[in-house]
Amino acid sequence: MPKENLQELEIRLKSFAIARDWVKFHTPKNLVMALSVEVAELVEIFQWMTPEESSEAMNDPRLSVAIKDELADVMLYLVCLSSMLRVDLVAEAHTKIDVNEGRFPIRSNKSAH
Amino acid sequence: MPKENLQELEIRLKSFAIARDWVKFHTPKNLVMALSVEVAELVEIFQWMTPEESSEAMNDPRLSVAIKDELADVMLYLVCLSSMLRVDLVAEAHTKIDVNEGRFPIRSNKSAH
Amino acid sequence: MPKENLQELEIRLKSFAIARDWVKFHTPKNLVMALSVEVAELVEIFQWMTPEESSEAMNDPRLSVAIKDELADVMLYLVCLSSMLRVDLVAEAHTKIDVNEGRFPIRSNKSAH
Amino acid sequence: MPKENLQELEIRLKSFAIARDWVKFHTPKNLVMALSVEVAELVEIFQWMTPEESSEAMNDPRLSVAIKDELADVMLYLVCLSSMLRVDLVAEAHTKIDVNEGRFPIRSNKSAH
Repeated sequence: MPKENLQELEIRLKSFAIARDWVKFHTPKNLVMALSVEVAELVEIFQWMTPEESSEAMNDPRLSVAIKDELADVMLYLVCLSSMLRVDLVAEAHTKIDVNEGRFPIRSNKSAH
Repeated sequence: MPKENLQELEIRLKSFAIARDWVKFHTPKNLVMALSVEVAELVEIFQWMTPEESSEAMNDPRLSVAIKDELADVMLYLVCLSSMLRVDLVAEAHTKIDVNEGRFPIRSNKSAH
Repeated sequence: MPKENLQELEIRLKSFAIARDWVKFHTPKNLVMALSVEVAELVEIFQWMTPEESSEAMNDPRLSVAIKDELADVMLYLVCLSSMLRVDLVAEAHTKIDVNEGRFPIRSNKSAH
Repeated sequence: MPKENLQELEIRLKSFAIARDWVKFHTPKNLVMALSVEVAELVEIFQWMTPEESSEAMNDPRLSVAIKDELADVMLYLVCLSSMLRVDLVAEAHTKIDVNEGRFPIRSNKSAH
């Protein structure tokens, strides 16, 4: 089974939830709460680091494992939620970059975010 | 330019940040904060809904636009952060499903999440 | 030592951090991250509950202990952060209710939040 | 009406919600979501700052107003949620400091948080 693929990820997640009878828990309201909890577990890793330490975190083998694990959890809930809402994440993200390119023209005010 | 693609998304985001001189702001610590803020904007949409209303939210045109917009923002910061950390989001998510399949065998305790 | 008091709480927190040499970690940026992590631990308790189950949660002794513990952590970081920023939480909260009483007059549109 | 007081804050919040018929929305599940959204609005203020800039934020009049406003919102939802759950925030926070004083003795490992 090819595992590089985002569509494949969505299919696996759906089967996973169905097989465990978890679909009843997966309302958008609940999934968005779960997504926010997973993001907070990522925030927890970085909370006491300086910005410089955060840039070096992946060089620490223990931190690297923890960060990958939490990023995976965030991605899983984001894909699960989007799938439930029938939203094409990648297409919407591209559309949003198009919009942002208009909103933040390159030459204006480089230093403000 | 093909826009269906996740790798393409990562490349566009990188160019976007470089062109606006925003890379200096994009430490993992800052990006994880921004990611949590974008997720909260998604939470805000659902906070006063019943679970049933949340399941019907995409049928409301105004809500549908807002939800797609916030999902896109979450995806953009998640891809930006993962790119900065040199983590392959989709590969790590597949690995995590493999792990979860072991942790939550299908027959044990269907009702507990 | 009287423990009912909010000012006393602030003093105890300050001494606690100084005695452990943790003040250097307590920048507003770091404390706001820690606050968001503590709130997420509270969200985690309620994420799979129906709204009705959430209203009954305190009747479950195990949940009641967990909820009180997480509420305490949120309060501690909120007081610590406000203290660091020299903000009087209770006074600001009263001011905000004054503002909200103007923004949301009692007779207008009872059903919208 | 004395406004320095936390109990008074709780009473005002309760009357505010009753007068606007908002109590039906105030399940613990919904309130904890709202609390997390308010904390994220505080995170947003600090997300692109360096830790040093965050320590100076209150010296900027515009930032100072925004920070006080968001802290007030966090406090209001925290008091509202605790009131709904019949939890005494300040008492629980004192209890938690008692516990933490045992968990983190003063002499052990000053540098670890």
